[in-house]
Amino acid sequence: MSILVVGSVALDNIETPFGKKDNAVGGSAVYIALAANYFTKPVRVVGVVGDDFPQEYIDLLDVKMIDIEGLRVIEGGKTFRWGGRYHYDLNMRDTLFTELGVFENFDPVIPDSYKRSMYVCLGNIDPVLQKKVLLQIDKPRLVICDTMNYWIEGKPDDVAEILKLVDGLLINDSEARMLASNPNLIIAANAILEMGPRFVIIKKGEHGALLATKETIFFAPAYPLENIQDPTGAGDTFAGGFIGWLARTDDVSDENLKRAVIYASTLASFCVEEFGIDGIRDLSYLSIQDRFREFKNLSHVSS
Amino acid sequence: MSILVVGSVALDNIETPFGKKDNAVGGSAVYIALAANYFTKPVRVVGVVGDDFPQEYIDLLDVKMIDIEGLRVIEGGKTFRWGGRYHYDLNMRDTLFTELGVFENFDPVIPDSYKRSMYVCLGNIDPVLQKKVLLQIDKPRLVICDTMNYWIEGKPDDVAEILKLVDGLLINDSEARMLASNPNLIIAANAILEMGPRFVIIKKGEHGALLATKETIFFAPAYPLENIQDPTGAGDTFAGGFIGWLARTDDVSDENLKRAVIYASTLASFCVEEFGIDGIRDLSYLSIQDRFREFKNLSHVSS
Repeated sequence: MSILVVGSVALDNIETPFGKKDNAVGGSAVYIALAANYFTKPVRVVGVVGDDFPQEYIDLLDVKMIDIEGLRVIEGGKTFRWGGRYHYDLNMRDTLFTELGVFENFDPVIPDSYKRSMYVCLGNIDPVLQKKVLLQIDKPRLVICDTMNYWIEGKPDDVAEILKLVDGLLINDSEARMLASNPNLIIAANAILEMGPRFVIIKKGEHGALLATKETIFFAPAYPLENIQDPTGAGDTFAGGFIGWLARTDDVSDENLKRAVIYASTLASFCVEEFGIDGIRDLSYLSIQDRFREFKNLSHVSS
Repeated sequence: MSILVVGSVALDNIETPFGKKDNAVGGSAVYIALAANYFTKPVRVVGVVGDDFPQEYIDLLDVKMIDIEGLRVIEGGKTFRWGGRYHYDLNMRDTLFTELGVFENFDPVIPDSYKRSMYVCLGNIDPVLQKKVLLQIDKPRLVICDTMNYWIEGKPDDVAEILKLVDGLLINDSEARMLASNPNLIIAANAILEMGPRFVIIKKGEHGALLATKETIFFAPAYPLENIQDPTGAGDTFAGGFIGWLARTDDVSDENLKRAVIYASTLASFCVEEFGIDGIRDLSYLSIQDRFREFKNLSHVSS
């Protein structure tokens, strides 16, 4: 089944205690698309870059058969740039700079060939733009979106509106607490379900993720990695693995949402093992399956 | 199988956003014993109190058939008192006061009738005293201990020594990071295993717990409670449920350690639902079994 991904495409300067990389390709749309692309085709990207965006990155997406008809290149424009430095324990980071460039006036236009996409993943962008995307496409089978504190605080009414339009919300734990105004994640999850979506996935970093629907609650641990190089893009990779599995199986039952959460965690675990996109650049489907099975065993106990 | 519990017996003043309770019976030995007592008998307690310790609390332990021959009452002494106030999100607390009283000179003497206990749980006390307990008893089948930052920083050599003598360590996540000098919990768990114990259980509060042996890694989520009143004693209750299940089944295989972690989490989930010991004061074994089954389903996914 087809997947439509809308989000940022960026050049990142990343510093962690384990190294440093400048001008790495990044942005939510890139991580989501690379992860989802292991599960199904076509994966279609809508985004914007300047003409400083290196051709090698275009070629990379192209060679992976990711559909980039919707990736607009603005002549004379600058690509969105972000610089971040992670602390010792990798759970905290400082943003060193943000240069929005052409992303500041991003106005997602959905090509005709994208309009019948069945699965839609709205990366963490302005909720007004997220809504604009949904108004341009035929009714898809499933829409998920990400959001963040910046929008929850700055555009609460627009966030509330998008939550009525999507099937699922993916959100960090601190942002879930903020959105629901409650520190208890279970109460927060239920409060978010009251806001509209059929399911919510709360991402807890090294502590895994929790999936809640009206009928189900499910906990997935994070994969026990000793070697974490760079958490950049882990949340977006999670989203890409999640929607990728759903689109591949075309099954949105609660039980399959659980499997999708484990595939999401699986892809995120590969992501953090290397810098930038390197960890999810060239995986085999077999290695994904192997780690998925290990993941299931992490919390399995025989009766 | 018999269980020996050594730890503090205290009177607590507890404040949480949901209420306040003064002179509540507490201390690690009390929580551990109450939880373990649901699984097996006899549960034997070694501790010390002053003659201000209310008779009703003695009666409570007595009526539950907890063996308190080893609970010494010091005439004219004051029972250990602790006061704490929890923050809004219950993950942080301020200690308002600590009055050690008779606990300051606690010198655990193991009654003869306790010396052949098969399962031993050493609550979070001075590692020198933990070792002293082990020197007084016949070789038990399994010994677990708890410790904390205060001892890790203050008596690192004694902590290192006790880790060579016990089978398992139960420890908070922040303390595991400190003990292993590494922020990555998987690396920390493996480093702790190198220090001596056959297994380590890292308690992560609302994020559940992880069990590591040389061969196994296992994640148990925390039970998804909407109603958390008071986290006091949750870690000790966890330890009690853990050793209780092991002693009941007399099976220390890796697979049964996993089950014990879920029973531990089950008991801890009951504990935090009410103030002080109230949540684990009067449970039925059936209600424990029911919640254990729900717990297993929280992270189960069909293939």
